[in-house]
Amino acid sequence: MEDATHISVKVSNGQYNVSIGRGALKALPLELSRLNIPRVCVVSDSTVARLHWSRLSPILPQDSAFFEFPAGESSKTPETVLKILNFLADNGFTRNDAVLAFGGGVTGDVAGFAASVYLRGIRVVQMPTTLLAAIDSSVGGKTGVDLPQGKNLMGSFWQPSAVICDTELLETLPQEDYLDGIAEALKCGVIGDEGLFGLLEECDGVRGIAGEIISPCVSLKARFVEMDEFDRGDRALLNFGHTIGHAVELASDYGVSHGRAVGIGMVRMTRYAEKRGLCHDGLSNRIANVLKRHGLPTECDYSWTELKNGILHDKKRAASDMRIVYPLEIGHCVSRLVPTEELVEI
Amino acid sequence: MEDATHISVKVSNGQYNVSIGRGALKALPLELSRLNIPRVCVVSDSTVARLHWSRLSPILPQDSAFFEFPAGESSKTPETVLKILNFLADNGFTRNDAVLAFGGGVTGDVAGFAASVYLRGIRVVQMPTTLLAAIDSSVGGKTGVDLPQGKNLMGSFWQPSAVICDTELLETLPQEDYLDGIAEALKCGVIGDEGLFGLLEECDGVRGIAGEIISPCVSLKARFVEMDEFDRGDRALLNFGHTIGHAVELASDYGVSHGRAVGIGMVRMTRYAEKRGLCHDGLSNRIANVLKRHGLPTECDYSWTELKNGILHDKKRAASDMRIVYPLEIGHCVSRLVPTEELVEI
Repeated sequence: MEDATHISVKVSNGQYNVSIGRGALKALPLELSRLNIPRVCVVSDSTVARLHWSRLSPILPQDSAFFEFPAGESSKTPETVLKILNFLADNGFTRNDAVLAFGGGVTGDVAGFAASVYLRGIRVVQMPTTLLAAIDSSVGGKTGVDLPQGKNLMGSFWQPSAVICDTELLETLPQEDYLDGIAEALKCGVIGDEGLFGLLEECDGVRGIAGEIISPCVSLKARFVEMDEFDRGDRALLNFGHTIGHAVELASDYGVSHGRAVGIGMVRMTRYAEKRGLCHDGLSNRIANVLKRHGLPTECDYSWTELKNGILHDKKRAASDMRIVYPLEIGHCVSRLVPTEELVEI
Repeated sequence: MEDATHISVKVSNGQYNVSIGRGALKALPLELSRLNIPRVCVVSDSTVARLHWSRLSPILPQDSAFFEFPAGESSKTPETVLKILNFLADNGFTRNDAVLAFGGGVTGDVAGFAASVYLRGIRVVQMPTTLLAAIDSSVGGKTGVDLPQGKNLMGSFWQPSAVICDTELLETLPQEDYLDGIAEALKCGVIGDEGLFGLLEECDGVRGIAGEIISPCVSLKARFVEMDEFDRGDRALLNFGHTIGHAVELASDYGVSHGRAVGIGMVRMTRYAEKRGLCHDGLSNRIANVLKRHGLPTECDYSWTELKNGILHDKKRAASDMRIVYPLEIGHCVSRLVPTEELVEI
């Protein structure tokens, strides 16, 4: 393991460590023993299992079990969670044991949610294998699955007991998947880290420097999670670009991926803020330029009518007002409630 | 409303009130307005809806919705929870709204669990309509549904925002259902309230004095929940009689109801403690006598072989040891880990 970065996240029921670095995976046995976890159930999708199982398997505790589900967003359902719960029960997992989420965002979501409701909650260790999961979903405890009515409508806040992010696992990622992570990293830059924004403004791709990108993102996220673990206030800033992003994903029937949609959402929301004089001009172009540099889209063809449904179904909606997030400058975002009808300008 | 009793329960994210008394239901509008809940989704079973809907319906906030499911333990499943979630989403419930669990233990469990996972958790108000639910499940935040592998294997800790127990609603209960509540009340007496035990030792039925029985039970439970919200230690005492009780329920394929099974479990566990010299003789007979006085069974014909499966599947099991709870005297229980094989003596 070469120079892993360790970030501590303080939450209501304790704290947990996030380890980031090439070969960080090798620290798993030590981490499990420190946490007094005798046995884990690895949850992973078919793609990750094929690529990385050989690295993980030799360092697992004896008597561990392995649950695999088909890769893809379409697995992010209550049915997958129920299958995991049946598997845990069939294999006699107890309250002392843990779930090990080994994969991307979908894996972290379904495995984390299953852990949160099995025996009224057992521990989960998150091991993200995509840039997006490393930056976004593995830290902070949001878990969830989709219902026919919308994304993440069923879920929980369930903090991991540890997060281990081995950047070596990211090297097999197709370029497409990298892009989604870059969009989320850029979001982190805009809401709270000018230095990170500058790095993304100048680098050519992030393949060689994944650790340098992930660490500041996780630090920023940890700060927001510590302030607002249950997403009642400040944490809403992490949703910059997401209200419109989710609507774009929905309108495209998930043909536009999450990161791309968030990128488009950031640009549109910042344009709206510029138009209403909430921030100075030029910000949206600066954001759009970084997206373009990395090959990410900045626009989409959907009209307000097409996006409206997704926006109004957003679960952050409080009655007739919507909470929107926009930047005042790079590294500083704010949120405010606006009447829903005003959003037609977006 | 005549002289309702109010008990406050302090939990990690605040506190909530339990109101107990004849006509306590009438306080609902005030409680919802105090909690700033604009809209509720009432969840109830077919029996309770038929008996009591006319009392509740006129005092609900405008624009409330009503979800009904078939009465009975067989509804305590992930499927019922999913139906509630779909209903909440279809009816546009937001994070400001709440679920109102109006019914017995099954209703409190499925509605509480659904609330805990809808949009990663919205508030729930518990309105128990059975003695058992009033005493046991409406306070303390345990929610859960059954899986094919066992009872309550899927669930969460989700404290209610308020509990309103109108003892008038209990008057329609069949005698059978009262008995289940009496067994749980007796359990409360044994583990922490000698006065309550004495009351049950001397009264002829509890129909006229439900409030007098429920209030000390809720006070006791509140004390345990405050000490150990997430059931990691002291709260295990509330499970006196439950390890064997659950096994009896399972062995009878749920032909023996929960309260009856817990009564049998209390007597068996106390006999075991007497036999091993852990408490003085005569305690089990004293408990059995109160059960008999109220028409509850004290014995069952199941052998160790028949009960073993249910006992070993108990989710409180930690590897090869079992945590058992037994009384030292009336009003004082303790718990200890014993090697699983010792339990054959039960």
